[in-house]
Amino acid sequence: YGRFGLDYNDANDRAVNGVSKTTITSRLRLQFDMSAETDSGVAFDARFRAQSESRDNVNQGSNPSGAAFNGARFGVSYQGFRVNVGNIIGAVENMPGLYLETRTAGIGIDGAGFVSNVGNVNGEYFNWDAYSSAGFGVNGIEALYSTGGFTGHISYSTRNGAVAVDRFGVMLAYTFGDWTIAAANQSSDIMWEDKTLVSVAWDGGQFGARVAYADNDGISKFGIYGNMDIGSASNLLVFYTDEDAVDAGDVLAGRNDNRDAVAGSNQQEGGSYGIHYSYDLGGGASFEAGYRRASNDNDTFQAGVYFSF
Amino acid sequence: YGRFGLDYNDANDRAVNGVSKTTITSRLRLQFDMSAETDSGVAFDARFRAQSESRDNVNQGSNPSGAAFNGARFGVSYQGFRVNVGNIIGAVENMPGLYLETRTAGIGIDGAGFVSNVGNVNGEYFNWDAYSSAGFGVNGIEALYSTGGFTGHISYSTRNGAVAVDRFGVMLAYTFGDWTIAAANQSSDIMWEDKTLVSVAWDGGQFGARVAYADNDGISKFGIYGNMDIGSASNLLVFYTDEDAVDAGDVLAGRNDNRDAVAGSNQQEGGSYGIHYSYDLGGGASFEAGYRRASNDNDTFQAGVYFSF
Amino acid sequence: YGRFGLDYNDANDRAVNGVSKTTITSRLRLQFDMSAETDSGVAFDARFRAQSESRDNVNQGSNPSGAAFNGARFGVSYQGFRVNVGNIIGAVENMPGLYLETRTAGIGIDGAGFVSNVGNVNGEYFNWDAYSSAGFGVNGIEALYSTGGFTGHISYSTRNGAVAVDRFGVMLAYTFGDWTIAAANQSSDIMWEDKTLVSVAWDGGQFGARVAYADNDGISKFGIYGNMDIGSASNLLVFYTDEDAVDAGDVLAGRNDNRDAVAGSNQQEGGSYGIHYSYDLGGGASFEAGYRRASNDNDTFQAGVYFSF
Repeated sequence: YGRFGLDYNDANDRAVNGVSKTTITSRLRLQFDMSAETDSGVAFDARFRAQSESRDNVNQGSNPSGAAFNGARFGVSYQGFRVNVGNIIGAVENMPGLYLETRTAGIGIDGAGFVSNVGNVNGEYFNWDAYSSAGFGVNGIEALYSTGGFTGHISYSTRNGAVAVDRFGVMLAYTFGDWTIAAANQSSDIMWEDKTLVSVAWDGGQFGARVAYADNDGISKFGIYGNMDIGSASNLLVFYTDEDAVDAGDVLAGRNDNRDAVAGSNQQEGGSYGIHYSYDLGGGASFEAGYRRASNDNDTFQAGVYFSF
Repeated sequence: YGRFGLDYNDANDRAVNGVSKTTITSRLRLQFDMSAETDSGVAFDARFRAQSESRDNVNQGSNPSGAAFNGARFGVSYQGFRVNVGNIIGAVENMPGLYLETRTAGIGIDGAGFVSNVGNVNGEYFNWDAYSSAGFGVNGIEALYSTGGFTGHISYSTRNGAVAVDRFGVMLAYTFGDWTIAAANQSSDIMWEDKTLVSVAWDGGQFGARVAYADNDGISKFGIYGNMDIGSASNLLVFYTDEDAVDAGDVLAGRNDNRDAVAGSNQQEGGSYGIHYSYDLGGGASFEAGYRRASNDNDTFQAGVYFSF
Repeated sequence: YGRFGLDYNDANDRAVNGVSKTTITSRLRLQFDMSAETDSGVAFDARFRAQSESRDNVNQGSNPSGAAFNGARFGVSYQGFRVNVGNIIGAVENMPGLYLETRTAGIGIDGAGFVSNVGNVNGEYFNWDAYSSAGFGVNGIEALYSTGGFTGHISYSTRNGAVAVDRFGVMLAYTFGDWTIAAANQSSDIMWEDKTLVSVAWDGGQFGARVAYADNDGISKFGIYGNMDIGSASNLLVFYTDEDAVDAGDVLAGRNDNRDAVAGSNQQEGGSYGIHYSYDLGGGASFEAGYRRASNDNDTFQAGVYFSF
């Protein structure tokens, strides 16, 4: 897909970081999917992506001249069962109710930092195994099983080094009628990465509502989310999340500090909120606009278009 | 498209720069175009390219192992109106009559330095906003409008930094009968980049002729160009350009020196000329050969093939 | 194609090199072929590949974020005659009987170091001009001619530098009935790269056998190879190779040392052997497994799947 728009971010300032407050934010992603099926019905598949992205008037990704490929994911599937290796999805990442119900999965055009995600706290963002569109990924292995409304998912990855540094993830989700409940857990050998997440979502057609909660190795964060269709083409979404303070002992042990009352902390304790508006232009294209205020008082507003091809 | 051939360049010498006088010059370019159209007829599109190129027996581009993607361009168009962001075309770059009427847009197989372009003087080559096939581009924004034989084009880009460093470009072109006239202007915050260009071209079918002139922030350059079809498949093109001397005060202020009488200058003052021959092989393939002598007395001869796919 | 599997390698040890003995080995390769044909029947073509690969839990290739393109090869062909430039095949590389009759052309999933190849001795592996799937290639030129069962192939490449450093290769192969005989020679300006190789192969349908011999600038290596179909879908392959000791004078002149009796040598003198099993799953997919013991006593075992798309 492609997307582009304007980003107003009050953390940017030419006098401070050399970036204009208003910049172009854009991404172009082309996905290559390949597959083969054996005579017995077992299917093999593989995927990689080429992506070009700009944020803050700077080219993102590993290629200084533009778009770059990410790492490949390989899969073997048979009926409801699937095993992937390489740039895996990740069990926590795959939990329903973790991301916003928008095209960017966050607010605005590029997600605006994804502060709406309850797994993201205290500057420890995306510290779980997840598919990477701009990187090699975690080179892990995972198994998924789906039947009826049920999905189970376990994932594992390790890193090179003198001792094994592993991440295990598990996720369970169940959909019945308008309701989806989900829970996930990550057990990691890396400090401050153990986490447990739960979500309950209700999709009533014109209206949708969701609550999510995560214990991020001692830092709780909860979120409430609501969205409603307006007329035939528009959708309006709002969210509020609240992040607890880090334990003082953890900070002494070297963890980031998010406490509002402490000088030099990242000030991420407390509430974030945002609003997002989407208008369907037809043909796979839509107008998207969103504003959010993060718990550290950073404001962003983004507006632009998405299109599929 | 693909192209490959042999390049003789008398500036190469194993004893001087370690490069054989005769080398392979080649390029393979694969373009990815994606688009979507809304119900109301507004079209969105995006493009990037993957390109592998060799010059002087050295891999070109950002990827040491071969081909690389460039930056993406995003567009929205409605009838004759278009807005692009990202790796934009650029108003000056888009001026008719700036490049040669050959497949390379210059002489030979890889353009042979594009000395035929009146915007290129004094070692300040391609110092305007232009689409980059091997880079991220200027991450700008531009608007184009075409109706009948008329095209108008404005473009803008900025760079990160404590102060805004902008380039504005504007271009107007009009085609009537066999004639095309065009003018462009760039106003840039970067030193020595303000320029104004004009061209008049006549395409009489079997014969074509063109004149072009540019004031490159004080350095004038003009060019005269002619080409004729020979039989049903051949075309012969010749050109002559003449570059004025840089102002002595500009050199004192830090600008490059192109004056022929000055030791240590790039010696680019004066006349360049070249000849190019093309033979259509059918099926999108052609044989191309060209010789040019640049105003600094550098000789190159290149011959090879182009093919489309 | 895609391939992925598990690699057990007793040279890996977390306590020694930080890599687990068992890792995921994977590769995803997507080939882009482009062509055009002139009215007179001369065909032009070009090719590059994008490849993502993991070995020893490390991303391979030039792009830190995943897959990367290689260098392009350009070709012009007419009936049995072909000229390529760029990332050429190479005359030695193209010799029949040099690689194993498996999907990886070596043992297991990723070739397991290709110790079965008689051109690979004494840590001087792949020191001939060859098509590179993960690199820019040698930027050479080559000519091939095929008619009936006969193939002739010459190749040439040079490197930039104060003096020309060239590699010339020539290869001749002939197939008659169930037999294929082939010979190749490389003459190189780089030390220790002159080599002559011969092979004789017999393909009797259910059974196949082959012998190969190479003189690698004074280091002889021979190999014997056999494979047989088992039932309708399985194939079993075995090989044995034996590498001679390097000349003591060459070692004094700076060459690698492979002698078993010498401390600090790479210990590659002597015999290597291996076994490979393949099971066709249909639809272009197969199960592949292989074990080999290299002459330096390194053991590897790999099992996984290949699939085409």
